[in-house]
Amino acid sequence: MGLTVENALLEGERVGVRCEDGKIAALGPGATPQPGDETLDAGGAHLLPPLVNGHTHAAMTLFRGSGGDLPLMPWLEEKIWPVEAKLSGEDVYWGARLACAEMLRTGTTRFWDMYWQPEATARAVADAGLRATIGAPLFDLHGSPAELREMAHRGLEELAGAGPRIAPALAPHAIYTVSEESLRWIGELGAERGLPVQIHLSETEKEVQDCLAEHGERPAFYLDRLGLLNERAVLAHGVWLDPDELALVAERGATVVTNPVANMKLAVGGVFPHPAARAAGVAVGLGTDGAGSNDSLDLLSDLKTFALVQKHAAADPTAIEAAEAWAVATGARAPRLGATPLAPGSPADFLLLRADSPELGIGELMADLVYAASGAAVAAVVVAGEVLVRDGEVPELEEVAARAAERARSLGL
Amino acid sequence: MGLTVENALLEGERVGVRCEDGKIAALGPGATPQPGDETLDAGGAHLLPPLVNGHTHAAMTLFRGSGGDLPLMPWLEEKIWPVEAKLSGEDVYWGARLACAEMLRTGTTRFWDMYWQPEATARAVADAGLRATIGAPLFDLHGSPAELREMAHRGLEELAGAGPRIAPALAPHAIYTVSEESLRWIGELGAERGLPVQIHLSETEKEVQDCLAEHGERPAFYLDRLGLLNERAVLAHGVWLDPDELALVAERGATVVTNPVANMKLAVGGVFPHPAARAAGVAVGLGTDGAGSNDSLDLLSDLKTFALVQKHAAADPTAIEAAEAWAVATGARAPRLGATPLAPGSPADFLLLRADSPELGIGELMADLVYAASGAAVAAVVVAGEVLVRDGEVPELEEVAARAAERARSLGL
Repeated sequence: MGLTVENALLEGERVGVRCEDGKIAALGPGATPQPGDETLDAGGAHLLPPLVNGHTHAAMTLFRGSGGDLPLMPWLEEKIWPVEAKLSGEDVYWGARLACAEMLRTGTTRFWDMYWQPEATARAVADAGLRATIGAPLFDLHGSPAELREMAHRGLEELAGAGPRIAPALAPHAIYTVSEESLRWIGELGAERGLPVQIHLSETEKEVQDCLAEHGERPAFYLDRLGLLNERAVLAHGVWLDPDELALVAERGATVVTNPVANMKLAVGGVFPHPAARAAGVAVGLGTDGAGSNDSLDLLSDLKTFALVQKHAAADPTAIEAAEAWAVATGARAPRLGATPLAPGSPADFLLLRADSPELGIGELMADLVYAASGAAVAAVVVAGEVLVRDGEVPELEEVAARAAERARSLGL
Repeated sequence: MGLTVENALLEGERVGVRCEDGKIAALGPGATPQPGDETLDAGGAHLLPPLVNGHTHAAMTLFRGSGGDLPLMPWLEEKIWPVEAKLSGEDVYWGARLACAEMLRTGTTRFWDMYWQPEATARAVADAGLRATIGAPLFDLHGSPAELREMAHRGLEELAGAGPRIAPALAPHAIYTVSEESLRWIGELGAERGLPVQIHLSETEKEVQDCLAEHGERPAFYLDRLGLLNERAVLAHGVWLDPDELALVAERGATVVTNPVANMKLAVGGVFPHPAARAAGVAVGLGTDGAGSNDSLDLLSDLKTFALVQKHAAADPTAIEAAEAWAVATGARAPRLGATPLAPGSPADFLLLRADSPELGIGELMADLVYAASGAAVAAVVVAGEVLVRDGEVPELEEVAARAAERARSLGL
């Protein structure tokens, strides 16, 4: 017994998708239901791979609309950190549930998360049904390396047994909040356990200048020297990576996740050099960052801003084309982020986008997806053969939004 | 007999809005239905002023997704102008109908249009029920000033009697496509008839350089010398206006409409200097530009890009705040664009935004509107006391989208 989606449109052809045991069993004009299958009539909707949000802080939906249009450090120090110090597991759970609902509704089925109380986020992900790689943020700026180690171990223990759709990661916050000693230790632990290591890198120019002043080298070289730059590294931002750093990142096989909306909102002043990164062979993904600095989790909308700001920064409308932006947002340019192709044997994760959406009816599909559509065009989302979004709706969204709003109010947000 | 909206939320207070003869008759906690009124339960939705799209080419929905990621001039010369040469009135009508439906659905109730066959656009606007100021584009680059005059007169005749929600304008395309002689003539005709004059100005740096080379002065000064810079002028783009030009534009009382998404998509390389323009006292509005170069008409989404690119350009997150971006998008910073306040005696044009939209439930409303919401949050739209959008739907959208797609296909788009 599985799920069969009938009457979907794939590259101009009517196809079916048969899902069994969480995987795509058959895909094509001949894929038809087996006895006992649930069936879903796609009504001619476009069949597409889902989006991968390569960097977020899911529970920060609680901080939406509280940024006060501030710069990064005052925003963190005045608005975010004081409230984060008092977050409960319930707060994180409902904030993350809201994030999961919003991401699902707008076509994202997998995300990379860095946030406090990872167990609460993992529960939210498991209850919502999508997929995530989760790491507790590690700092020792105001603490000791010993405390950081304890936090790291506790985070990994909390995530053990979190279910088949959740993977653990290590998540040192940044090179300016984690000591050299602790970064080295994290690198060793990551290697020992084969864990991905997520870190904010080269988000602001100040970070680069401080790194040069303190360590005599730029951030990517510093990270490499400490043993953290390898194919398991996921570097969020990378705005100020220079050509030598891009070459090194490519050589080491690390992934950069660009977060154009958050970078513009916090006005870091630069733009991730995507054309140069791709030319150097860097693996690139797209992220929303947290709802505190975006403030949306609609990657299908951020995808457009990504393409726009790349064209703008290069003063060249050909700097990035629609198909390339789409490939980045679906994880096709960053194999380590966990995207899976639409093909038999792959996990049964996919989207159906309304063909009758006015934004998708005229012109090339890729251009329409990137420049005209938003998450509102999503009709259905399937993860592991389960239908999580139907008719554009996440069934439990209303209750989840109300519970999250209640938690935010109780925190004075 | 009128319309009474009950149970709306305005600045934290439950209010009603009673509309009669197309105007707001009463607004506040005490505004209740009169016998015979149609009533609409807002269900606690936020009552807000509608958005004003200050610059578009409505029928260019037909060109959506056909841009091929090209620069401005090749895009115009290769993709747009050859097809525009064969557009029928039916093509323009259905393209504009689709634009009207999309704008209404995403909260825009008034737009400024520049396009061929203005009579067809006017019919579309009248049938859709929103408001527009419309001008036929005037060129004499490949024709004569005599032909341009004939086009201008024909355009005005076509728009005479187009109905109470439609106003005519003159729309010289740009200083590089209209001769000095014709620009002067347009200025005189505008003054004689009290007509708004819309023009693309200072969109690319090349336009500025060419103007300096040919006329020895920058575009705003050139326009002023020809008698076109006054309180009836609506200047689309203004990306490259320098401080002296901004001071002159402010002194003359002209309006600048910034189109950040189109500017980034066509990669003109600059950003409209909004903080300097506001400091100089320039009236500023926001536009999507045509769907050919955006490719969406969702101003509630472009509003975010506007704020983001202003912060980015200034490398300062405080360069523009949410409330200022909202004011620009609703026409509150450009009185000549025709926005009306939410107050008794004003035209009964307003929006209801779902309070249960997950993007609007946490944090400050202004920040949520600008950074988190998109047009999908719109529950209802009222124009002149008529409910044109209910439950987020424009009733005739499906048919309109199908007809427009059919016209696009017939044009080979």
